[in-house]
Amino acid sequence: METILTGITTTGIPHLGNYVGAILPAIEASRCKDVRSFYFIADYHALVKCHNPAVIHRSRLEVAATWLALGLDVEKSIFYAQTDIPEILELAWIINCVTSKGLMNRAHAYKAAVAKNTSDSSNDRDRGVSMGLFCYPILMAADILIFKANKIPVGSDQIQHLEMARDIAARFNYLYGEHFVIPEAIVDQKMSILVGLDGRKMSKSYDNTIPLFASEKMLKKSIMSIKTNSLPPGAPKDSNACTLFQIYQNFVSAEEAYLMQRRYITGISWGEMKQTLFEILNNRLIEPRQRYQELLKNPGYIETVLKNGAAQAREYSIPFLRELRRAVGIRPLSDIV
Amino acid sequence: METILTGITTTGIPHLGNYVGAILPAIEASRCKDVRSFYFIADYHALVKCHNPAVIHRSRLEVAATWLALGLDVEKSIFYAQTDIPEILELAWIINCVTSKGLMNRAHAYKAAVAKNTSDSSNDRDRGVSMGLFCYPILMAADILIFKANKIPVGSDQIQHLEMARDIAARFNYLYGEHFVIPEAIVDQKMSILVGLDGRKMSKSYDNTIPLFASEKMLKKSIMSIKTNSLPPGAPKDSNACTLFQIYQNFVSAEEAYLMQRRYITGISWGEMKQTLFEILNNRLIEPRQRYQELLKNPGYIETVLKNGAAQAREYSIPFLRELRRAVGIRPLSDIV
Repeated sequence: METILTGITTTGIPHLGNYVGAILPAIEASRCKDVRSFYFIADYHALVKCHNPAVIHRSRLEVAATWLALGLDVEKSIFYAQTDIPEILELAWIINCVTSKGLMNRAHAYKAAVAKNTSDSSNDRDRGVSMGLFCYPILMAADILIFKANKIPVGSDQIQHLEMARDIAARFNYLYGEHFVIPEAIVDQKMSILVGLDGRKMSKSYDNTIPLFASEKMLKKSIMSIKTNSLPPGAPKDSNACTLFQIYQNFVSAEEAYLMQRRYITGISWGEMKQTLFEILNNRLIEPRQRYQELLKNPGYIETVLKNGAAQAREYSIPFLRELRRAVGIRPLSDIV
Repeated sequence: METILTGITTTGIPHLGNYVGAILPAIEASRCKDVRSFYFIADYHALVKCHNPAVIHRSRLEVAATWLALGLDVEKSIFYAQTDIPEILELAWIINCVTSKGLMNRAHAYKAAVAKNTSDSSNDRDRGVSMGLFCYPILMAADILIFKANKIPVGSDQIQHLEMARDIAARFNYLYGEHFVIPEAIVDQKMSILVGLDGRKMSKSYDNTIPLFASEKMLKKSIMSIKTNSLPPGAPKDSNACTLFQIYQNFVSAEEAYLMQRRYITGISWGEMKQTLFEILNNRLIEPRQRYQELLKNPGYIETVLKNGAAQAREYSIPFLRELRRAVGIRPLSDIV
C-alpha cells in the first residue's frame, strides 16, 4: 500500500494559483481509496521565518480552514499539525546524529543565503542564517520518515530536500538495519501554473495574485483589473496571449475552452469575457468561501479535526519511534541485549 | 530557590578520577535541602559519538548504576534519562529557530574538528563532522533551559557551551518576552584533579585510570603497578613528587595527610605505602562496589528509579513547554489572540 505525505506551508493566505497548482490535486488525491495519505500543517517549519506569534497562530487557523473548506477528505486521509507529533522532533535529533554536516552545507536554500552574503561582500557568510534554516532539511526528513511515506508530491524546489531525506534514511539503514522506507519524490511535470493579474506566473512575490476567499466584490474587482489590449468588441482576439483565457481554461472542460477560443476569434468583448470569468470563478468558490467563513468562526471544530488527525498519526509514529530508539540503543534497561 | 542541573555523560565506565573530580562533589550537592537539583543521563548526546546500540544500552545501565551505588540521593534530587523527556527535543527545535548559525560555527568542539581537517590539508573542512556534533550546544541549551536551571556545574571545557545557552535564552526572551531563566556556570576552580597511574592527570585518553568498581584483586593490581623511584625502605622520600601520595590525600583528612607526609620523611617503604593506599581505597569502595554489582543484576529497579525521576522532571517540562509554545504562536486554535 502506498503512503503519500503532503506538507502544507502556513506562510501566507493561499491564492488561486496555489489552489490550481497544489491544493486541488492534493485534495483530489485525498479521496483515493487505495493509498494511505497524510496531510500536515508545517507549523514548526513556520517558526524558521516568522517570529510573530499572532501571525503564526492566525496562519495555522487560516490554512487549516482553507484545506477543509476546499474539501480535504479527513475520513480517507490523516490531517494533523506537525506541532502535535512530538515524535518528529525526537526523530530529528536521532537523524542529526547520522547526518554529515557537509550534506546540509549543500542545501539550496542555505547556499542561496551564503551566495547573497558573499555578493554583498559581507564578512559573514552566514549573516542572517538561523540554525532553523540550516537544519530545515533534517526536520523535513523526519516529517517524511516517521510515517514511512514512500511518495512525496513536491514542487521542483523541494526535490533536493527529498534527495537528502533519501540519503539520511539510507545512511541510518546502513548503520542500524532496514528501518526506514526510502521515499520518492513525485514531481508533476504537467503541474498547472496559473498566470496572475499581470500575465506572469501567479505568485505572492509578484503581488499579482487573486485571493482564494476574497469577497465576491473583491474577486470581481480583481478580475476587472486584469490588463487586456484595446481591441474593440467584434474584433478577433488571440486567446493564447490573453491572461483572462489562461485563467479561464483551468476552470472549465476542454470542450468549453474550445468554444471560448472560437468566441475569441469571433470577437468577444473584454467586458463580457471578464464577466464570464468572474462568474465561473465565483460559482466555483461561492461554496468553499462560505464554508471557509463558517470554519473561521468555529476554530474549536478545526482544532478537534486536527487533534483527531494527530491521534491517528501517532498510532504510526509512537510505535515506530519506539522501534527506532531501540535500534540506536535506547530501550528499557531490563531488556536483554 | 536555586535550581542546579548536572548532565552525566554516558561514554565510558567512570574511573577514580571522575569520582573525585566530578561525581563525589555532585553527589554531595544532591543532599542539599535548599536547592532543587536535576541530574540526567545524557543519552541523546551519546548518539553523537557512538553508533553501537549495545554500547549505548550498556553505558546507560552502568552509568546510572554507578551514580546510585555512590549514593545519589534520589529523594532530594531528580534523576532521569534525557531520552525520557521529549519536551527537550521539541525545545531544541524551537531554539534552533532563534539561534544564528554563526554562533554554532564558533563552538570549540566544531572548530577543533575543522582545524584538524584543515591541518590534514583535507579539501573538506567538515569531514567527519555530523549534524549531531554541530548542533550539540543547541541540545545542551535545551537541557538546561527547559528546567529553568540557574546554576550549572561545568568543567572548564563546557564554559563556552554555557555561554551559548545564555545567548540563546536572552535572544528568545528579547523576541518573545521573559520566559527563560539565564543560567550561570559554576566552575569549581579548586576541582580536584586526580593523578593517574603514570603521574599525569587520570584520564581515559592517557589510559592511566583506576576503574571505580574493579574487583578488589584488580584494584590491588592497579595500585601495585604505580611507578615509584628506587629508594629503599628507611630512605626519606618526597611526598609531593609521589603519585601514591597524590591519590592518597584525596581520600583522607588533612590531618591524616599530614601524618603520612611525616612518614615519607622518615622513610616509609613503597610496599607499605601501596598497601596503605589500597586499603584506604578499598575500604572506601567496598560498599559502593557491592551495591553497584547488585544494581547491575537488577536493571528493572534502575529503570523504575529513572522513570520516577522522569515523571517528576516532566511536571516541570510539560507545562513550561506549553508556555513556550504559546509564546511562539503554537496554541489551541480556539484561543483568543
